[in-house]
Amino acid sequence: MKNKQLVLDYTNTISDSIGTEHGIMPGEINEYLKKAGECHRIMKSDRESERIGFFNLPFHKKTMKRINDFVQSRYRQYENFVVLGIGGSALGNIALLSSLKHPYYNLLNRKERKNYPRIFVLDNIDPELVVNFLDVINPRNTLFNVISKSGSTAETAAQFLIFTDLLRKKIGKKFVRNLVVTTDPEQGDLRSIAEEYGIQSFDIPPNVGGRFSVLTSVGLLTAGFANIKLNQLLSGAADMLQRCDTSDLFKNPAYLNALIHYLMDTKRKKNISVMMSYSSPLFSWADWYRQLWAESLGKNVDLDGNPVSVGQTPVNALGVTDQHSQVQLYTEGPNDKVFTFLTVEKYRKDIKLPKFKGDYSSLEYLSGNRLSQLFDAEMRATEYALTQQQRPSCRVIFPQINEYTIGQFIMMYEIQTAFAGLLYNIDAFNQPGVEAGKRATYGLLGRNGYAEEAKRIRAQEKDRVRM
Amino acid sequence: MKNKQLVLDYTNTISDSIGTEHGIMPGEINEYLKKAGECHRIMKSDRESERIGFFNLPFHKKTMKRINDFVQSRYRQYENFVVLGIGGSALGNIALLSSLKHPYYNLLNRKERKNYPRIFVLDNIDPELVVNFLDVINPRNTLFNVISKSGSTAETAAQFLIFTDLLRKKIGKKFVRNLVVTTDPEQGDLRSIAEEYGIQSFDIPPNVGGRFSVLTSVGLLTAGFANIKLNQLLSGAADMLQRCDTSDLFKNPAYLNALIHYLMDTKRKKNISVMMSYSSPLFSWADWYRQLWAESLGKNVDLDGNPVSVGQTPVNALGVTDQHSQVQLYTEGPNDKVFTFLTVEKYRKDIKLPKFKGDYSSLEYLSGNRLSQLFDAEMRATEYALTQQQRPSCRVIFPQINEYTIGQFIMMYEIQTAFAGLLYNIDAFNQPGVEAGKRATYGLLGRNGYAEEAKRIRAQEKDRVRM
Repeated sequence: MKNKQLVLDYTNTISDSIGTEHGIMPGEINEYLKKAGECHRIMKSDRESERIGFFNLPFHKKTMKRINDFVQSRYRQYENFVVLGIGGSALGNIALLSSLKHPYYNLLNRKERKNYPRIFVLDNIDPELVVNFLDVINPRNTLFNVISKSGSTAETAAQFLIFTDLLRKKIGKKFVRNLVVTTDPEQGDLRSIAEEYGIQSFDIPPNVGGRFSVLTSVGLLTAGFANIKLNQLLSGAADMLQRCDTSDLFKNPAYLNALIHYLMDTKRKKNISVMMSYSSPLFSWADWYRQLWAESLGKNVDLDGNPVSVGQTPVNALGVTDQHSQVQLYTEGPNDKVFTFLTVEKYRKDIKLPKFKGDYSSLEYLSGNRLSQLFDAEMRATEYALTQQQRPSCRVIFPQINEYTIGQFIMMYEIQTAFAGLLYNIDAFNQPGVEAGKRATYGLLGRNGYAEEAKRIRAQEKDRVRM
Repeated sequence: MKNKQLVLDYTNTISDSIGTEHGIMPGEINEYLKKAGECHRIMKSDRESERIGFFNLPFHKKTMKRINDFVQSRYRQYENFVVLGIGGSALGNIALLSSLKHPYYNLLNRKERKNYPRIFVLDNIDPELVVNFLDVINPRNTLFNVISKSGSTAETAAQFLIFTDLLRKKIGKKFVRNLVVTTDPEQGDLRSIAEEYGIQSFDIPPNVGGRFSVLTSVGLLTAGFANIKLNQLLSGAADMLQRCDTSDLFKNPAYLNALIHYLMDTKRKKNISVMMSYSSPLFSWADWYRQLWAESLGKNVDLDGNPVSVGQTPVNALGVTDQHSQVQLYTEGPNDKVFTFLTVEKYRKDIKLPKFKGDYSSLEYLSGNRLSQLFDAEMRATEYALTQQQRPSCRVIFPQINEYTIGQFIMMYEIQTAFAGLLYNIDAFNQPGVEAGKRATYGLLGRNGYAEEAKRIRAQEKDRVRM
């Protein structure tokens, strides 16, 4: 499997390529060898004690079998599979679909989809979006997968109200057959409802946080209904886990990439981490990364209780598209970013550029090349232009896009994020900063016990300056 | 029309709301009154001399009529309208469609589309994307709109080669009937080809840069084939132009917002500008803004020829979705961002949240509210949480989403960007930083005259450090 392994190429983050002001000097990494050993021991202990659950998800073979069985017994019955979820209950699902299925999957006909349903991930509650969505699905032949780890996420609860009401009106008491719930195995309203109504359900292990949950039933059920090979996905993740089971920074791509980003942020003033996917199917993983990196590392208190203010801002970008949007800024603007290019070695589809009669110099040099050659040349050209301007970048190279490499990518970035948390000395697994907003929302909607919040917001909103 | 006007609410950018360390003090704006007058005179002169063309686009009524006539004569003939373009030849088109058409437009049937074609914007050359795209369209009943201002954009040229070859194979010499070209009125290969083959064509005025071109035939032709009202779009833009025809900062939303962002960047260390759309249909405008802001202001030399290194990094975010991804970082991470919320006052669609039987506290408080109330409460809650943490934010409020308000938005942001360019003292209308990458690409593809570039890149690529 060696030639199917993800490759981390960090050439252009080091001082040899981009100079000592912005590049990392070899000695700098060596200074962290001891620290890496300490962090590795903590990670090992978190994994073995099952305090942190994502490490061992590749070995949850029973869950995988239950999901596969459920999918096989049901997939022919539905025209649509709809995820009602948000954040960690949606981003990984979207990325699995975008990277492993046809880019216009829902426009394919039933036969082209091999009798599998169309798949929608409704990860917002914009009223215009939600109401318009009703035009394109018939609830009768739709399976709704309600996903919420806590079982009480406001947005998912609102969607649940809308779609269960609709189902009841259309098909009466049998509506539960069109629902499947993914939530905590014991706690929360969604779990209670599943039990009261006998709704089919799957578990999210309590020791796996939302943004680390794509390899739980959160992502796997969607993947199953899209005819994605779950065993290959888990096998890729397992192999990356093993590969990263060493404190040797020069053998561990997750640890080294974490350290590079940490150094770029804290010693080189790169407060922005751009993940630029030179692959349209991989682009959604950059969006998944946005949550993973931002929510895990954006913290205002460290593990010793001291106030801090850390966290790179992750940005997603798409090659070559964003060359015509962001690259002007990337090359000439402030040197405040570290770049990660996602690239693909062997494409699943390709096409040769035909000739066009006539003396047109803007067409001639293209003819005869494969489209992939142009695409790759542009990636290399952008990397080169950035390097010339001393902007650090690395490549994460997919030998090919498939379940096995995607599984590796997921595990690499989850490990990288956990390790980065230890370097920053913050808790990568909580998200206290979203609580204030939740309480404020409850207040504004008149939920019992939150009147004070509402009062405070209204006071703050009183004197508006507008034009 | 006053109550249909876009509103800029900048309450939470000022020191009254977020304190003097991060907020702007009233006196600070007054310091720029004279400068605003100077900049205003330059803008006026650029407009009147037609050096800069975007200002007067709302008055190009002949172009609009030509487009409307063409659309009316053709729209019933095609099942698909496909844009082949990238950057400024795609981002505005996508945003017009997302904001003014059904969110699942291409899944609606012909009748629901009132006999108008499905619309695709193919703004990348990923080989997997392009080849897979061929599965969902039949070239015979597809109109391809090839858009390139220079007439020689590599990506669009490659697409042109692929699709004209395909058309020729399918329908022979009549293939030109399935093509329409949008390019410079006189120069470039695409113009020559249109003339040689008698392909229907539209002009991009030479004095309008790609990222300012959505209201030229670049955007309008797509909009026409999507049954979007062009006159309302232009009328909104014209009204905003008039509204911004004053140097009085307190009456000019574009100028004031430019100044706020400029001060936040240069005096308050906010090198990131987040446009967070609390509207799913408006989200694509944040992507359009990314190009406008980044490519216009990300520069390394000022108007006097001095080396500088300026430009905020624009980031797009989506409410409420990104509350579950980015808000942890936004509230607790470094205070290095200024936020713009796009919000909507009156939704085109809405739904009341039904009741659900049983004692479920996570559902009860929601029932009876409209979905829009939850959505708005979350926006206000996020704004409140940010304000509590002294993070500056403003609101751009759409009374409703329609052609008239979208037209206003486009013109406001284009003026704002031009004005910001003058504050930064840089040329907002060039993009020299993308040239290096273009030359490198030519070199790697073996285009005549670029062998030196190829040699240099290959030398730089030689010693890779990878694992």
